[in-house]
Amino acid sequence: MSSDLYRLTASEISAKIKAGETSVEEYAKSLLARIESRDEAVQAWAYLDPEYVIKQARALDAIPTAERGPLHGVAIAVKDVIYTKGMPTQFNSPIYADDAPQVDAGSIAILRKNGALIFGKTTTTEFAATTTGPKTRNPHDPKRTPGGSSSGSGAAVGDFQAPIGLGTQTGGSTIRPGSYNGIYALKPTWNSVTREGQKIYSLILDTLGLYARSVADLELLADAFAIHDDAPPPTDYTVKGAKFAFLKTMVWPNVGPGTSAALDKAVSLLRAHGAEVEEIEFPEYLNELPNRHATVLNSDGRTAFLPEYTVAKDKISEQLVGHVENSGKISRKAQLEAFDEIAAARPIVDDILGRYDAVLTPSVPDEAPLGIEKTGSAAFCLIWTVGYAVN
Amino acid sequence: MSSDLYRLTASEISAKIKAGETSVEEYAKSLLARIESRDEAVQAWAYLDPEYVIKQARALDAIPTAERGPLHGVAIAVKDVIYTKGMPTQFNSPIYADDAPQVDAGSIAILRKNGALIFGKTTTTEFAATTTGPKTRNPHDPKRTPGGSSSGSGAAVGDFQAPIGLGTQTGGSTIRPGSYNGIYALKPTWNSVTREGQKIYSLILDTLGLYARSVADLELLADAFAIHDDAPPPTDYTVKGAKFAFLKTMVWPNVGPGTSAALDKAVSLLRAHGAEVEEIEFPEYLNELPNRHATVLNSDGRTAFLPEYTVAKDKISEQLVGHVENSGKISRKAQLEAFDEIAAARPIVDDILGRYDAVLTPSVPDEAPLGIEKTGSAAFCLIWTVGYAVN
Repeated sequence: MSSDLYRLTASEISAKIKAGETSVEEYAKSLLARIESRDEAVQAWAYLDPEYVIKQARALDAIPTAERGPLHGVAIAVKDVIYTKGMPTQFNSPIYADDAPQVDAGSIAILRKNGALIFGKTTTTEFAATTTGPKTRNPHDPKRTPGGSSSGSGAAVGDFQAPIGLGTQTGGSTIRPGSYNGIYALKPTWNSVTREGQKIYSLILDTLGLYARSVADLELLADAFAIHDDAPPPTDYTVKGAKFAFLKTMVWPNVGPGTSAALDKAVSLLRAHGAEVEEIEFPEYLNELPNRHATVLNSDGRTAFLPEYTVAKDKISEQLVGHVENSGKISRKAQLEAFDEIAAARPIVDDILGRYDAVLTPSVPDEAPLGIEKTGSAAFCLIWTVGYAVN
Repeated sequence: MSSDLYRLTASEISAKIKAGETSVEEYAKSLLARIESRDEAVQAWAYLDPEYVIKQARALDAIPTAERGPLHGVAIAVKDVIYTKGMPTQFNSPIYADDAPQVDAGSIAILRKNGALIFGKTTTTEFAATTTGPKTRNPHDPKRTPGGSSSGSGAAVGDFQAPIGLGTQTGGSTIRPGSYNGIYALKPTWNSVTREGQKIYSLILDTLGLYARSVADLELLADAFAIHDDAPPPTDYTVKGAKFAFLKTMVWPNVGPGTSAALDKAVSLLRAHGAEVEEIEFPEYLNELPNRHATVLNSDGRTAFLPEYTVAKDKISEQLVGHVENSGKISRKAQLEAFDEIAAARPIVDDILGRYDAVLTPSVPDEAPLGIEKTGSAAFCLIWTVGYAVN
C-alpha cells in the first residue's frame, strides 16, 4: 500500500524508487500524510513546507535514471542549526526568526548532490546549546521529552516522519535523543564530517550526528560522508569468539534501573552467543574528564556567542550570556590546561579501547524523563564527546 | 584636506568622526577615490560596489551620536572567504561565482554592530587553501606577490585602501601578507575569535587574522573581539630590563639575507635599549612539528572539501582533489598520531616561551618573492599555526 511508504527505511525506499515501484513524489506524500496525522502529538518540525517538498520531489523524479545519486529520493530531517538553501534556519532563537540565508551547509550540499530530499527543519534547543526543551514530545510517550538538543530529528525519525535525520552533538545532543526515541544514532569522530554551515558552540566538541532506523541506513549516510576506517571491516566477523568490554565509566553512579538492566541483558546475550565480555574501568586519573568537558565548553561558548551577545544580548538565554561574560570565571590558563589534559587522555583511552572489538557503555542514565521542559542528562555522553578524535 | 582621509589609521579616523570633523560618507569617498587611482596597479578587491559603500556610509552617518559603536565609520576590508550580508562571497572559486548568501559571519556581525563600515571583499587564493596567487600585486612593488592567502586584505591595508582588514590563517595566510605588505598582522590564539561563517580548511588550524597600520588599531580590533588575557598588560612596562628570546626554530635554514639582517637589527636595538635577548632553540624532538602540520592539514582538507568535490570535482584545483582523494595516503592512524603529537607539544612550547616577555622569530624567509603566480613560503609560520592554543 503506497500510503505505508513512510514506514520504510532509507535503504528500502531507495530500492523501491530504483526499481520504479514508486516515485519520490508518492513517497513524499506518504510522509506528509504521516506528519499531518502525527504532528499535533509530536511537533518535531521547526519548518516544513509541503509545497516545497512536493516541488523538490518532482524535480528529483525528473532526473534521468542514469544521473541519480545513491540517496535518490530519500527524505532527510535536518536539525535547525544547519543551513539549508530554500528554507529558513532559525536556531530556536528569536534573533534568527524567519532568517533564511541562501546557503547549504557542507553536509547538505553532499546529501543534495547524492539525491536526498531535504525535507524540512527539525526542532532544537536554543542554538543546540541549552537543555531547555523545544515544543517537541517523545513519540513513544507524549508526556516525556524526546531528548535534545536534536529533539526534532530524533522524534521525527523515531515516529516514521522521516527515515533518516541529521543532528549535532556537543555534549550528548545526538546520542541522547537517539536513545530516548529508540533509534540508531551515530556521532562520528570529531571532524570526520564537514561542519561547514553548522552553528558553532564548541569547535573542538561539535560534530554532526546521524539518525536512522536501521544500521544499513547509517551505512548509507556514512558512505555519503566518506566515513571510512583505514581498513575495511572484516567480512567473516562473528560474535562468537569476539571480545567486548563493558565500561561503566566514572559517571556510573548516575545510572538508573532501566539502563542498568538493559546493559546486563546485552552482556548476557553476548556471552550466550559465545562472546567474551570483560568489565573494565578507566584509570582514576581520568575521573576529571567530565569537568574538563565543562571547562572547555564554557570557554568555547564565550567565543561562540559573542556575535549574538553583541547584536542582541536581551534575546539570548541567561546560560549563553553567562558563557560570554565568563560567569564561571574560567581563566585562559585553566582553559588551556583542560584542553591539554583532554588531549593527553585521548591516546590513553584509545589504547584501552583498542584492545576490544567494541565497548558497551551507557548512553543515557535511564528512560526519557517525564516532562518536555528539560531534555535530560548528558552525563554518559560527555567523555565520549570530549575525546574528540577517538575513532 | 578631506581627500587625504584615506591615509588615516582606524584610531585617527574614528577620532575625527567622533569629533564631527568629517562624516563617514566623506571618509568613504576618500577611500573610494584612493582605490580608483590605485586599483589598476594593486587589484586588491574581489568585490567592491561604491554605491553600496556610500549607502552604508550614509546609514552610519544617520545613527544618533549616543548610539554609535566604538568602530563607528571605520572601513574594513574583508577577505572573500568570510560571509557578508549584502555582498557576494566567492572564495576565488568558480563554484561560488556571484554567490551571495544573505548571512554575516560571526566576526562581521560583531564589527557591523560596533559600527564598522563593511567596505568590500578582498582577494584570496582558492578557498584560502592554495598558494596560487590571485590577481593582486604587492603595492610596494607590482612585480612582487603581496603574499597569500589573504592577498587582498594585506595589499589593501598596505596601500591605504582600507585602514584595517580581516584575513584568515591555516598555514601562514595572515602573517605572510602582513610581512610582505609592511603592515601589522595579528593571528590570535586558536578559537579566541569566532570563526562562524568563515570557510573551513582545517578546524584545528584555521583562525581569523587581523590587519592594521598601527598597534593601536590592532587593539581596537582585539577589543571588539574580546581578545583578552587573564590579567591586563602592565602599565609600567619598559624595554629596559625586559627579557626577550630570539628563536630561529627548526626551519631557520630557509632564511634569506633580508630577514636575517632585520632580526639581527631588532636584537641589537633591543639590547641597545637595555633589554636582555637570549638566543634559544627548541628541543630536537619538536623538529617534526612542520611535518605534523602537513599531516593534519592534508587530513582535514579531506573532510573540508568533500562538499565541493561532490558537487563539482572539475571546478576545484588539483591540490584540493588530492586532499579529498587522500593522494598522500595518510592513514587515520597517522592523522591521530600527528594530532596527539601536536597536542603534546603545546604545553612544552608554552612553558619554554612563557619564560620571556616576548619572542622574536621570523615570519617569512625574506622579502616578497618576484612574480604573482605563487604567494611565497609559509615555512616560518607553520609551527605557530599548528600550536593552536599557544597564547
